Amino acid sequence: MSAAGCKRCFALKVAYDGTHFHGFQKQPGLRTVQGVLEACLASLTRGACSVQGAGRTDAGVHAKGQVVSFCCGDWPIPVDRVVPALNGALPEDIAVLAAAEVPPGFHPRYDAVRKVYRYTIFRRAVRCPLARLYALHFPGPLDVARLAEAMDLLVGKHDFRAFQNTGRPVESAVRTLFTCRVQEDGDFLHLWFAADGFLYQMVRIIVGTLLEIGRGRLAPAVIGEALKSGERRLLGPTAPPHGLCLEEVHYRQELFTGSGEERCL
Amino acid sequence: MSAAGCKRCFALKVAYDGTHFHGFQKQPGLRTVQGVLEACLASLTRGACSVQGAGRTDAGVHAKGQVVSFCCGDWPIPVDRVVPALNGALPEDIAVLAAAEVPPGFHPRYDAVRKVYRYTIFRRAVRCPLARLYALHFPGPLDVARLAEAMDLLVGKHDFRAFQNTGRPVESAVRTLFTCRVQEDGDFLHLWFAADGFLYQMVRIIVGTLLEIGRGRLAPAVIGEALKSGERRLLGPTAPPHGLCLEEVHYRQELFTGSGEERCL
Repeated sequence: MSAAGCKRCFALKVAYDGTHFHGFQKQPGLRTVQGVLEACLASLTRGACSVQGAGRTDAGVHAKGQVVSFCCGDWPIPVDRVVPALNGALPEDIAVLAAAEVPPGFHPRYDAVRKVYRYTIFRRAVRCPLARLYALHFPGPLDVARLAEAMDLLVGKHDFRAFQNTGRPVESAVRTLFTCRVQEDGDFLHLWFAADGFLYQMVRIIVGTLLEIGRGRLAPAVIGEALKSGERRLLGPTAPPHGLCLEEVHYRQELFTGSGEERCL
Repeated sequence: MSAAGCKRCFALKVAYDGTHFHGFQKQPGLRTVQGVLEACLASLTRGACSVQGAGRTDAGVHAKGQVVSFCCGDWPIPVDRVVPALNGALPEDIAVLAAAEVPPGFHPRYDAVRKVYRYTIFRRAVRCPLARLYALHFPGPLDVARLAEAMDLLVGKHDFRAFQNTGRPVESAVRTLFTCRVQEDGDFLHLWFAADGFLYQMVRIIVGTLLEIGRGRLAPAVIGEALKSGERRLLGPTAPPHGLCLEEVHYRQELFTGSGEERCL
């Protein structure tokens, strides 16, 4: 949708199971979140709609609170009918939890002030088929105190260039990590990350490194060394995507207040 | 495996995600839990193994504590290696949580004294993609006190012939329901059922009826009327399978004590 033809713009809060998506970003011939949303909107609004997302989640990464926006030429629909209209047309593994009308200049990624990701680890010795799609199975011993010590070193404003994969170079790799904490819940370990923005695969590289630290193969101090030197090779492998979930995206003003915002789990 | 060729018999505690299985029971050309286990065991033991299950779960029904047994002619394996050997060979959506050697006469269904099923309902207005495989989405209002009242009427020893589907006639439909209770947990409602045995689709018919009662379309008293008359038509529809999970099967003696029994969720 060109700016000239744009009459109404919407923001949506979206949840999806990333298992059967090739990530968020549109790719020719592949099933992606952006592609499925755009096809659905094109059919409902009878016009092309370009969808932008707050986080470009990788293949296999889930979302409970992704925020996307789109503009359309003319869609004479009351805003409180957008959620049921979309959910009636979307496939089972993606749902819209809230919708709000926004100014045409709104951009879900550039305007976001805080994003929250969670990485879930299942710690029992034997894998669990009912947890396999949403948690990394990690059967070995893990020193949680050591893991928490390393997480503390990540909090703050840093140049995170060591913590990114090379696929998407950015001008500046300086980000502020507001929260980096671990939460134990029975057989599960939840690693929470909140920042003003994340680099490409940053959370998965942090988690892969934390696991190497937690099992004693790396020292917590590698965090400081990597932040200083920018050397990716000091860190652990990139953790698998299926344990990761985009939980929330925050803006200066609440987007969905009063719009009957829904939660998912 | 004929009784004559049977040298060793094992019981296994098994968990599976029922989504991609056509139920437990072997059927030609279809992927079933029994079929996958038998194929895996035939390959590991280099001989045919017939697998019996404690509960013949329908297509889409999950299990965290299914118990199966099998006998084999000769499999020179220490019993504590059975779990890793099987898990190394089984697909991702099924796992063995414990193994024990049992006498050849053991039958996981006939010897069971108590089976526990749980049915999970997700109550929010909008469906959640991350809960869709393991919980029934029920967005409408539901009177939980009324539901609990109806559940109380089911507890005890009754002729449950009204609560079965016609596919598998049984000689006696008398079963003892030890527990029938509802548990509220945030947006989820868990319905728990423990009995000495269940008829074909009995839990799903109970749940379908309870939902009709909870939404006010049927009176709790239909439970008593159906138990008395045996009339299936008095009851609600059969609830969908994916909310159901076989949680535990109990025997007179603990099968897996000391064998490092694992849990799944």
